[in-house]
Amino acid sequence: LRIECIAIGTELLTTTRVDTNSVWLAQRLADLGLAFHRKTAVGDSREDLRHLFLEALHRSEFIVCTGGLGPTFDDFTKEVLAEILGAPLEEDPTVRREIETFFKTLNRPMPLNNLKQALVPAGAMVLHNPVGTAPGLYWENPEDYPGRRIALLPGVPREMKHLWEYQVEPRLRELAGRPIHTLRMLVGSVGESALEERTTPLRQKHGRLDWTILASLGLVELIARSPEPAELDAARRDLEAELGADLIGVGSASLEETLLAKLAARGETLALAESMTGGLIASRLSAIPGASRAFLGGAVVYSPGAKTTLSDVDPALLHSAGTVSEACTRALAEGIRTKLGSTWALAVTGNAGPGEDPAGSAPVGTCHLAVSGPTGTRTQSHHFPGERAAVQARTASWALDFLRRTMLG
Amino acid sequence: LRIECIAIGTELLTTTRVDTNSVWLAQRLADLGLAFHRKTAVGDSREDLRHLFLEALHRSEFIVCTGGLGPTFDDFTKEVLAEILGAPLEEDPTVRREIETFFKTLNRPMPLNNLKQALVPAGAMVLHNPVGTAPGLYWENPEDYPGRRIALLPGVPREMKHLWEYQVEPRLRELAGRPIHTLRMLVGSVGESALEERTTPLRQKHGRLDWTILASLGLVELIARSPEPAELDAARRDLEAELGADLIGVGSASLEETLLAKLAARGETLALAESMTGGLIASRLSAIPGASRAFLGGAVVYSPGAKTTLSDVDPALLHSAGTVSEACTRALAEGIRTKLGSTWALAVTGNAGPGEDPAGSAPVGTCHLAVSGPTGTRTQSHHFPGERAAVQARTASWALDFLRRTMLG
Repeated sequence: LRIECIAIGTELLTTTRVDTNSVWLAQRLADLGLAFHRKTAVGDSREDLRHLFLEALHRSEFIVCTGGLGPTFDDFTKEVLAEILGAPLEEDPTVRREIETFFKTLNRPMPLNNLKQALVPAGAMVLHNPVGTAPGLYWENPEDYPGRRIALLPGVPREMKHLWEYQVEPRLRELAGRPIHTLRMLVGSVGESALEERTTPLRQKHGRLDWTILASLGLVELIARSPEPAELDAARRDLEAELGADLIGVGSASLEETLLAKLAARGETLALAESMTGGLIASRLSAIPGASRAFLGGAVVYSPGAKTTLSDVDPALLHSAGTVSEACTRALAEGIRTKLGSTWALAVTGNAGPGEDPAGSAPVGTCHLAVSGPTGTRTQSHHFPGERAAVQARTASWALDFLRRTMLG
Repeated sequence: LRIECIAIGTELLTTTRVDTNSVWLAQRLADLGLAFHRKTAVGDSREDLRHLFLEALHRSEFIVCTGGLGPTFDDFTKEVLAEILGAPLEEDPTVRREIETFFKTLNRPMPLNNLKQALVPAGAMVLHNPVGTAPGLYWENPEDYPGRRIALLPGVPREMKHLWEYQVEPRLRELAGRPIHTLRMLVGSVGESALEERTTPLRQKHGRLDWTILASLGLVELIARSPEPAELDAARRDLEAELGADLIGVGSASLEETLLAKLAARGETLALAESMTGGLIASRLSAIPGASRAFLGGAVVYSPGAKTTLSDVDPALLHSAGTVSEACTRALAEGIRTKLGSTWALAVTGNAGPGEDPAGSAPVGTCHLAVSGPTGTRTQSHHFPGERAAVQARTASWALDFLRRTMLG
C-alpha cells in the first residue's frame, strides 16, 4: 500500500514551525505495520499544491494531507483538490450548523469567512470535527482516480489527531491487510561498515527480509522488517549467535536503558568520574526515568584539583602520568568507586579538541576509559575522529558499552 | 530563486529519525533572505529517488539533497543522479587518499565498500569532507539541465553542516543577490508570550523589519531581518533598553558561551552540584571548546550519599529539610564551592518526574536553584510543566541564567 504524506503551509518550510504531524502519523502507521513512502512539505501556493496533488494521485494509493483547511485567504487545500477532481463546492447545512454552534459555545461572533469551511466538494465524505471548526474530508475512488483514497485533515495537531484516530485510521486498517513486523538490534563499539561486512552472509541468507543499517555516534542499529514473524525470529537467532557480546539488545531499548535495567536487576550501583565527556555520560543516564535506582552520581573532574578533591587521585600520579592517561583514568574510577561505595565505577579522560591539551601529551580524539568493579579495574584507550561534540558523544557511547561488556564478565 | 530540499533515507519516514537537516538549512537560507519552496523526504528506493530527481530538476533551480552518500548497499543517491545526468562514475585518486587517511588516523582497516565513496560522476565538483568519509558533490548547469544547481550532501548533520557552510553557501550567496542582515537577541528566564507582549510596541515601531520569536526550553530568541543594517541597529538599541538584564546577548552566542566568556574575562571559575539535572548543566558547559578555562567541574549528586560525600552536605540537614529543598540546594552550592575553591558555584535539586519523589515532598516539576559566590548565596524556586526531558532542560537553562544575572550584580 503506497501511502504518501503532504503537509501544507509556508511556515513548515522555515524554522518557525516544524511539521510534527507527519512524525505522529508515521508512528500510527508503524503500529499498523505500514509506512509512508514519501513526505512532502509545500508552501501556500495554489500552483505548487496543484502540481503536488497531481503527482501524488499518480504515484500513491493513499494520500494523507494536513493543513490549509482554515478560514483565511491562504487556506485553499480543499478548493485546489476539488478543482482537480472536477467536484463543485456546495454548502453543507450540517457542517454550517456545527461551526455556528462552535462559536456560540465560545460566546464569540462567527467571522463570516468561517462559512468557507462549510463548503463541501461533491463526492467527498465529511469528517466531522468535534474539537475545532475545520472539518476533514475523505475521498474513496474518485471518478478519474480509481483505487485512490485521499484524506484532508486540519493542520492543528490536536484536531488532526482526533480526526485521524476516529475517522481515518479505521478505514485504512481495513485496507491494510497483513501487518509488517520489525526486528531492531542495537550494536555497540563496532563501526557501521564493519558491521555491514560482517553481517552480509546472514543478511543474504535472510534475504526475504527488508534490511536497514543506521549508525549514530558510537552505536549502530540493524533493522529488519517482514510480514512473517517466524522469519524475523530465525534471523534474530542467527544474528545473536554472530554478534555475541557486541549485541547490546533486541527491541527498542537504548544503551542507557539496557544498562540501567541490568544494574537494577542485579541490585548493583554505578558511579562516574568524567573528565573529557564533562557530564555527558551522567546526563544521558539521568535522562532515563528511574535512573536513580542504580545511578548514584559522580564527579565531573575537568580541573586537576577536581580530580584530586572529588575522586581522590594522588597529585603525584597526575604529575607523573599526566591528567590524560590510562593511569589517571584507572585512579579516577577506583577513587570514585571507593568514595561513593558503588558496585561499579566508570571513568573517562581524554582530549576532545579542538586544540591540543595544555600538557601537550594527548592528540585531539584520544580517550582513556576505565571500569572498576568487584573483580578489579580494566582500561581501554581509543582515538576517535571528528569535532569536539562527535568525539565526546562517541566516547560516551563506547564508555557505557565498555561497562556493559565488563558486566557480562 | 526556486530552492528545493530533498532528504533521503527510509528512516526519515518513520519515527526512528527525524529530518533536522532541512530545518537547519532553512535557518541558513533565511539568513540569506531565501526559503525552500518544497521539502521532500523519500525512502531508500532507487525508483522513487529517480522520479523525485526528475521532478525536482524540472521545477527547481537549486536542489539541496542530504543523505544516501554512505558506503553501504542502501546508499545510492550519487549513482541515481549520475545516471539521470548521463555521467559515468570514475574513481577520484584524491578522494581515495582522503578516505584511506581517515581510516589510518583511526588506526582501523578500511572496509572495501568505503571505496565506493571515492567514485565521482563526470562533470561533478567534489566537496571535500574533512570531518567524515563521504565527500559531497556539486553540479552547476549540467548539460541537459541548464540553469540548475545541485548539491549532494551527507546525511550526518555534522558533516552536512560543514560542507554547507564552507562549500555550498558561498556559491548560493553569489546567486542570491542583495544580502539580508539578521539581528538575533537571546533572552533568558522570560516566557515566549510574555516576551511577545512586552516587545509589541517596539516591534510595531520597527515594523519594516521582518520579526520572528523562537522559543526553546527556557530560552527565547527574538530575531529581526532586513536589508538595511541601520534599521536593525536602531531596533537593537531600543530593545537593549527595554530588555535590560533579561537580555543574555546579541549575536549568535549561546547562553553557555556567553557565561563562560564572561567568567574567563573576569578570571573567575565555576563549580556545579547537580541533582535533578544529573550532569546536563555540566555537559552543556563542557560542550563548548575551551570550557576548562573557567569550568572546574563538579558533582552529580543523585543519591543522598553523593550529596554528603561529594558536596559536604550535613546528613542531618538532608534529613530535616529533605533532599529536594532550598536548604539542601544552598548547602550543595556552598559545599562544592568550598571543596573546589571556585569563585562561583551553582547547585540544583528538584523532581523531574515522571513519578513523585520517594520522600513525597516535591511534586513533579519542582526545582530549587542556588548560586554561591563572593558575596554570599542566593536561591530561587520554580515549578516547570512538561515531561522529564523538558523539565530537566528548562531547569538547566534557568539555572545558568540565574548565575548570569547574579554575576551582573
